[in-house]
Amino acid sequence: MQFDSLDDIRAFCRDLPRGDARAAEAATLRQQILTKPPGSLGRLEELAIWLARWQGREQPRLKRVTITVFAGNHGIAARGVSAYPQAVTEQMVENFARGGAAINQIAALVGAELLVVPIGLDRPTRDFTVVAAMDVDEFLGAVDIGYRTVSPDSDLLAVGEMGIANTTTAAVVCAALLGGGAERWAGRGTGVDDAGLARKHAAIEAALDFHRAITGDPLAVAGALGGRELAAIAGAILAARRHHIPVLIDGFVATAAILPLARLEPGIVDHCRAGHVSAERAHRALLRELGLEPLLDLNMRLGEASGAGVAILLARAALACHAGMATFSEAGVSGADQ
Amino acid sequence: MQFDSLDDIRAFCRDLPRGDARAAEAATLRQQILTKPPGSLGRLEELAIWLARWQGREQPRLKRVTITVFAGNHGIAARGVSAYPQAVTEQMVENFARGGAAINQIAALVGAELLVVPIGLDRPTRDFTVVAAMDVDEFLGAVDIGYRTVSPDSDLLAVGEMGIANTTTAAVVCAALLGGGAERWAGRGTGVDDAGLARKHAAIEAALDFHRAITGDPLAVAGALGGRELAAIAGAILAARRHHIPVLIDGFVATAAILPLARLEPGIVDHCRAGHVSAERAHRALLRELGLEPLLDLNMRLGEASGAGVAILLARAALACHAGMATFSEAGVSGADQ
Repeated sequence: MQFDSLDDIRAFCRDLPRGDARAAEAATLRQQILTKPPGSLGRLEELAIWLARWQGREQPRLKRVTITVFAGNHGIAARGVSAYPQAVTEQMVENFARGGAAINQIAALVGAELLVVPIGLDRPTRDFTVVAAMDVDEFLGAVDIGYRTVSPDSDLLAVGEMGIANTTTAAVVCAALLGGGAERWAGRGTGVDDAGLARKHAAIEAALDFHRAITGDPLAVAGALGGRELAAIAGAILAARRHHIPVLIDGFVATAAILPLARLEPGIVDHCRAGHVSAERAHRALLRELGLEPLLDLNMRLGEASGAGVAILLARAALACHAGMATFSEAGVSGADQ
Repeated sequence: MQFDSLDDIRAFCRDLPRGDARAAEAATLRQQILTKPPGSLGRLEELAIWLARWQGREQPRLKRVTITVFAGNHGIAARGVSAYPQAVTEQMVENFARGGAAINQIAALVGAELLVVPIGLDRPTRDFTVVAAMDVDEFLGAVDIGYRTVSPDSDLLAVGEMGIANTTTAAVVCAALLGGGAERWAGRGTGVDDAGLARKHAAIEAALDFHRAITGDPLAVAGALGGRELAAIAGAILAARRHHIPVLIDGFVATAAILPLARLEPGIVDHCRAGHVSAERAHRALLRELGLEPLLDLNMRLGEASGAGVAILLARAALACHAGMATFSEAGVSGADQ
């Protein structure tokens, strides 16, 4: 196992590998001499510099780009918090395998390999309104699975998830660590009706009540109120950090998955960018809490890394300009009158 | 000439070719049976349906995608309203020809042909603070050039511009047609300093004062206060409408170029989407006036179709999902519990 205890994770987060300030500086200087007014490519410039910092290269590359979708099942689904039956998690994993889902089309378009990692779909987490969703070993096991999926030679990772009922899981993790209750964090997920939304609120409030004693401990929250796919995302984020791989985070659930780490050490998100802000209403508030500015705002709410997957295109556009543009002196273009 | 008089343009705008409601309906129905919660791809669904409507195909295609950049020079540049000398317009056209600009890299990445159309760079428009920028024949000539650039077999067109001082031109067109003066419409463009911004404000106010009599006539404004590249964009928009080609509009200047048409007939923008909202401060207000919701918000302010060019990637993502995803019944995935 990569981490044998929660303390191992805490130690990692206290001593995070840093980005490469020299590569970032060199990329910043290059952006300033390309044939455009300084700063005029906006977030594309920022993306190029961010990739340079985390890859440690003035000219970052996107040769090997990986989209990883973790799937898990949730005991809380039995409380009727989703519009879809739990069987859909496995059915969608099969759909991924056959190439029929949105993320398959997006991965092919953006030139990424797609890795789908179902984690114990026949062993849903337990109903967290009455017990811990996972014990420590189950949690560490899922973190480990996520950690091991990351190939050290990836140039960019996009992470997402699939799991019926997991916006309830994400909401309860956010509420436990950030406050505000179900009112602040529960939304309609895949499109639950009013009665389902009321059940979702009730489940979240019951869970917060039951687990009140642990809300000061981010990793305990991630285990007792989280899910296997969320734990695996956290593991993948840590592995990416170790291997200097920048990461694009997908939607509300994927962002909630990194929240416990960020509560241990805010700098854990420095190698991450939010691929998009989803239509799930709490996502914008969560991104703000984490200091993440989303790249896209397309009213998407599908999960399965679809928003982060599309954002890979922006990283490609950023690097196309960064690598391919002429400088003012190469092109013989006059600079500003200053 | 496509249009022999301003009245020919007015007649075209009164009797616009419509979109294909049947193709749009069929695309909408298809989106509802793909393996995702209905609506969960957000604006990607909306883009697929919009392409279906204007191409008249349930399965739209993006085989031939064209990015067109019109370039023009402006007499108003002599009043010191830009951070760059006027020679940069031609230097950047040369940079486009040699492949060194941002839009060259973006066009290659997104799989689009790039067409750069300089229009009389050695004949800048006249200084509109003291005279009409163009007479009617000059204006119609530039509209005609734009119209003729559009190939009827294009599947998607992205339009942008290059022209030192043309954010001043765009601001004055907006102020003349929408009110609010320089205060509302002038920004820093490519990055003018405070003194330059003050000169920009003064030029806009002087122009509004001088041309007060014509502000009720959108085409007269487009001629007397506009620019050749703006007129050509308007021509290209009209040609695209005639040939059933959807259009992505670039930034503030390109959007200001379609404003006079939209003031004649608001439906003229139905086949257009705003590729992005730029960092030029007035762009957001202008998009709101036109009822256009931008696809991207990346703090870009380069022009040369760069924002619209990047947005082509979103159209490709939309169609990849629309064409490639499995339906619920094909994939054996359960629908919502409803």
